Amino acid sequence: MKRTTPGAVGVRTKRRFLLAAILAAATVAVTAVPAWASGADDPVVPLLLGLAVVLVGAKMGGWLASRAGQPAVLGELVAGIAIGNLGLAGFVGLEGLKQDAFLQILSSLGVIVLLFEVGLESSVSQMLRVGPSALIVACLGVVTPFVLGWCAGAWLLPESSVYVHVFLGAVLTATSVGITARVLRDLNESSSDEAKIILGAAVIDDVLGLVILAAVSGIITAADQGRTLSWGSIGWITAKAVGFLALAIVLGRAVAPRLFRWAARVKVPGVLLVSGLSFCFLLSYLAAKVGLAPIVGAFAAGLLLEPAVFETFEESRDRSLESFLQPISLFLVPIFFVLTGIHVDLSTLADPRILGLASALTFAAWIGKQACMLGVLQRGVDRMSVGLGMVPRGEVGLIFANIGATLVIAGERVITPSTYAAVVFMVIVTTLVTPPALQWSLRRARAKRN
Amino acid sequence: MKRTTPGAVGVRTKRRFLLAAILAAATVAVTAVPAWASGADDPVVPLLLGLAVVLVGAKMGGWLASRAGQPAVLGELVAGIAIGNLGLAGFVGLEGLKQDAFLQILSSLGVIVLLFEVGLESSVSQMLRVGPSALIVACLGVVTPFVLGWCAGAWLLPESSVYVHVFLGAVLTATSVGITARVLRDLNESSSDEAKIILGAAVIDDVLGLVILAAVSGIITAADQGRTLSWGSIGWITAKAVGFLALAIVLGRAVAPRLFRWAARVKVPGVLLVSGLSFCFLLSYLAAKVGLAPIVGAFAAGLLLEPAVFETFEESRDRSLESFLQPISLFLVPIFFVLTGIHVDLSTLADPRILGLASALTFAAWIGKQACMLGVLQRGVDRMSVGLGMVPRGEVGLIFANIGATLVIAGERVITPSTYAAVVFMVIVTTLVTPPALQWSLRRARAKRN
Repeated sequence: MKRTTPGAVGVRTKRRFLLAAILAAATVAVTAVPAWASGADDPVVPLLLGLAVVLVGAKMGGWLASRAGQPAVLGELVAGIAIGNLGLAGFVGLEGLKQDAFLQILSSLGVIVLLFEVGLESSVSQMLRVGPSALIVACLGVVTPFVLGWCAGAWLLPESSVYVHVFLGAVLTATSVGITARVLRDLNESSSDEAKIILGAAVIDDVLGLVILAAVSGIITAADQGRTLSWGSIGWITAKAVGFLALAIVLGRAVAPRLFRWAARVKVPGVLLVSGLSFCFLLSYLAAKVGLAPIVGAFAAGLLLEPAVFETFEESRDRSLESFLQPISLFLVPIFFVLTGIHVDLSTLADPRILGLASALTFAAWIGKQACMLGVLQRGVDRMSVGLGMVPRGEVGLIFANIGATLVIAGERVITPSTYAAVVFMVIVTTLVTPPALQWSLRRARAKRN
Repeated sequence: MKRTTPGAVGVRTKRRFLLAAILAAATVAVTAVPAWASGADDPVVPLLLGLAVVLVGAKMGGWLASRAGQPAVLGELVAGIAIGNLGLAGFVGLEGLKQDAFLQILSSLGVIVLLFEVGLESSVSQMLRVGPSALIVACLGVVTPFVLGWCAGAWLLPESSVYVHVFLGAVLTATSVGITARVLRDLNESSSDEAKIILGAAVIDDVLGLVILAAVSGIITAADQGRTLSWGSIGWITAKAVGFLALAIVLGRAVAPRLFRWAARVKVPGVLLVSGLSFCFLLSYLAAKVGLAPIVGAFAAGLLLEPAVFETFEESRDRSLESFLQPISLFLVPIFFVLTGIHVDLSTLADPRILGLASALTFAAWIGKQACMLGVLQRGVDRMSVGLGMVPRGEVGLIFANIGATLVIAGERVITPSTYAAVVFMVIVTTLVTPPALQWSLRRARAKRN
């Protein structure tokens, strides 16, 4: 009975026309609202539209990417780049998303929840087992890009001071683990040995990066003021970061089970989820307070919470913490990746003057992290995946570059706008290339194993 | 083997002492961080601590309340009041939570998700069935408090102008449906006839409140400037609000199924959740744009989405949209209620000069909404629960009072600080009394029915 008669088509066309006309009239009515009555003072209102745009964009991008055989996260990044660069096509209606502090906060919570989830899939003892590999991988992944970045700077910016070259080396040491964590999780590889080595190395990298950043900034500031560097303060920064991780492991293993045994006595719906989230937020906060990235704390929180900790919760009989977290992560995590894309300014790539330095930095960043392959001690671990997983620089590289932009040596900015654009280029390329490369390499390794 | 020997106690005490000492040292180390290294420029960091405090407070409060046989939401409100008034006990470390814009945004998202969830449990046709009752309930719940508030003002503030008395009446008309929606959901009564009448009336109330606020503010501004009121603009405001609801119902029923049939083709994890949330955020945004509360749009979005809409989604075979939403609501909804409590300033209650007006307003607010009982046309509906469910004024009453504080008539502020304090008192009492009263009345009705 689904045969369409000409009359039915006429009726449907009329109904569609009517719908379109009503929609158009409604749009006019909505936009012609006096400011005081439009809830203009309620900051949640613009966020609601932004969230709808970002979430729909994320799913469309993820879908197109997965149809093309690519990881969903690549689609989310590209969707973000498309939304963020609509201005180049003359549409500026969504420019506000770039500066939206509330979207930014939800995106930060998203990446924290993601690393917490990934941490839950491993335990402290499993991480310690891959510890030696992770340590060597991290050191190789810091030293090689540092040297290569320094050389690239010395070669292409010969007129700049040696401090500029050193700083470019420092910028390349960072690892942004969000992209890798997401690809690993989407491919169900979060608890593989590759994942543990990459994530362990990324945590150590964050400590090393913090120390390098402190040392390099300190040297430059001291040199500019004709003072000598205060090694004590750098030692203190190192001690705090290492101390935080050591304490988190030692104390956390002793305290977390007691804390959660106590929380399990609170019998209200959602106590399992809320206890887990609060623990994660608290460790992220403490990590940030010692100068580490909040996601390092979130990952540590996930490592510390092992299934046995939750046994006393009534709710955990039917449902795991992971299954409670999943919808929150489905909601918040794509916001992080779309926003990462939105902040990419494609017009920086169009400047031919930066292309030389940009390509050299990108090459140094890529090759530099491939050295990590050599640090893997375990047998049966896919070394190429480890190297590829360490490549993305993401927002961490930009944070380094931003600090460089505030440093001045002999009246010259350490990171000039054109150097900054080259760093942005390097960040974009390393971030976008990683998901497909890592997926390819993990699948290849899996096929070889079976 | 769990017998504790004296030696074991000594070891445990020593270990506890060691733990405490390490914790203390860690606290000192964390607080002695240079500002640049403490992530002070990442706005997510203070939010992380705030979230942990608010979430833990919510669960503790909810637990204590449920142990005392009270609804969990009362415990969350009281926990918020406790956190927000620690300053009275000399502890000011958490004062920042009151001004935290990011917590506020998460709380706004929380109440939007709550009303969306509650809306999902009913449908448009079910709401239209109780339409006549809801309309009469809403009108009675607006007219009676308005008249009583006016009288209370005229009686206790005889020296003020008639406009002040009218405005006090207007402040009492608002209904804040968040508290009621939460109690109904916690008691599994969201799809009862009482719930439908209360929620339908609350939506109509929001339209009426918008019109009254526009009219009263318009009259006062015009009188102060010696002009006459522009009825046209008030007519336009009314037309837009009513038009939005009518369009949402008519268009939404036609458009939503198509939209979701199309979204179901996007086969990526989380597309069901993200489509539902985006639809909810979009309607909340549009509601705010026509001057209604965002939660009215969220509730309408929930009403429009009926199970049939989701049948084409692959994910819906295993899991409903409601089950995806539940963890998000467990995370965000308590933030709304704790923050509502945090914004209560207990010191306003200590001023004996306001107690007369405050008690009269509270009495008028309470009695005024009890008139709603008379508007229920259906048989078998518990009228007392309907009356009690309409009582809380929540943040809506405060928004009205804030607008009054900006209005001036003949050089006198319409809402003076002491009048404002009386309104705050009324809001606190109506908000805190509702959860236990409504729980009692719904349980009594349920017992009578069985």
